[in-house]
Amino acid sequence: MRQLYVGNKNYSSWSMRPWVLMKQAGIPFDEIFVRFDSFGPDSEFKRIIGPLNPTGLVPVLVEDGLAVWDTLAIAEYLAETCPEAQLWPADKAQRARARSICAEMHGGFQALRSACVMNIEADLAQQGALIWRDNAAARGDVARIISMWSELLADHAPSHADGMLFGRFSIADAYYAPVVMRLTRYALPVPVDVAGYMRRVEALPGVKAWVEGALAEHDFVAFDEPYRLKR
Amino acid sequence: MRQLYVGNKNYSSWSMRPWVLMKQAGIPFDEIFVRFDSFGPDSEFKRIIGPLNPTGLVPVLVEDGLAVWDTLAIAEYLAETCPEAQLWPADKAQRARARSICAEMHGGFQALRSACVMNIEADLAQQGALIWRDNAAARGDVARIISMWSELLADHAPSHADGMLFGRFSIADAYYAPVVMRLTRYALPVPVDVAGYMRRVEALPGVKAWVEGALAEHDFVAFDEPYRLKR
Repeated sequence: MRQLYVGNKNYSSWSMRPWVLMKQAGIPFDEIFVRFDSFGPDSEFKRIIGPLNPTGLVPVLVEDGLAVWDTLAIAEYLAETCPEAQLWPADKAQRARARSICAEMHGGFQALRSACVMNIEADLAQQGALIWRDNAAARGDVARIISMWSELLADHAPSHADGMLFGRFSIADAYYAPVVMRLTRYALPVPVDVAGYMRRVEALPGVKAWVEGALAEHDFVAFDEPYRLKR
Repeated sequence: MRQLYVGNKNYSSWSMRPWVLMKQAGIPFDEIFVRFDSFGPDSEFKRIIGPLNPTGLVPVLVEDGLAVWDTLAIAEYLAETCPEAQLWPADKAQRARARSICAEMHGGFQALRSACVMNIEADLAQQGALIWRDNAAARGDVARIISMWSELLADHAPSHADGMLFGRFSIADAYYAPVVMRLTRYALPVPVDVAGYMRRVEALPGVKAWVEGALAEHDFVAFDEPYRLKR
């Protein structure tokens, strides 16, 4: 039995990655939803996640009593466990490139992540315009993402009509799916090839299923809402 | 030909990880040292690293024209390329555990990393005492590291006389070697089992070789020196 513990779909960008990865790749799992709460001493979230993951964070993958935490470790574990799903590119050099950009996402883009927290149900275009005007570091993060995606799409999806970052869907697309959510919800400007890729990501059944779940939550977690006062 | 681009050994904790990993595991490579400088428009560092790595950071591994950046991607690439070196634990569950703690290091421990920047040649015990007194987040990071190491050592090195985090040396030890440097140079308090592990890490030939290189640099990079005014 394979279980994935996730937080609120509207907010939890790290939960989104392995969930979309497994859903889109057809890897069966049971979702265990743990609502974001105060994270204080009386937190139900911490009471559930704490014994599984010493960092107290989601996502956590639990399989046959083994808990794997942190999105990158989960992705590598799944790639090993489900080789038939071909979660990484088959070519060694492309696999190294995919791992490089996933690790880059894992540890980087702090300015974009902190200015544009994921909030799938919200229209934050006005905040996005202010961020774009005032936040040079966030603009720099977006410029790097655009350059990365454009280069990969030119190599792997040259028709600009279909194709993911490495041709077929891989961990890299799941890893950047929450970035697509940020760019669209904050309406940050991107060139046409990148916009096309973003539409294709949003059309993936695994991504659509996550977004539908997010829209169905009707929740409001104050500390993940730097801009909205209410829903 | 395998080349690893690294920054100053005294300061560059991310460079240290793959360098120590390869040196300790006996994987041959050529080191290309790129001195930290202003990182401004006229930066020699950026001129060399920029064309190899779009993030402009070290370390970068270059092999047969393929550039792999970011420490975790380099570690996975080497584990694939050099299976005989057994860089990850052989057991699947232990491998998942090792990947979990490496990913946790990769994206976490921000408070410790920012308060206790790596500075191998320096004695920063006085600063360490102030950090320990005043910085609850850094204390929390150290508590988590102590708990992680103690648990792994109890499982894999129960005699407390030898042994690495997963018994034999693995990527996990290389990943936490810079943390050993921080804990010792800032003289942060650790229990006896953890102190023993730290001594064993410092005694690894791969770690000793890195430290010797750091001590031979006699360099002073101002932005990596929040505490010292000069050497």
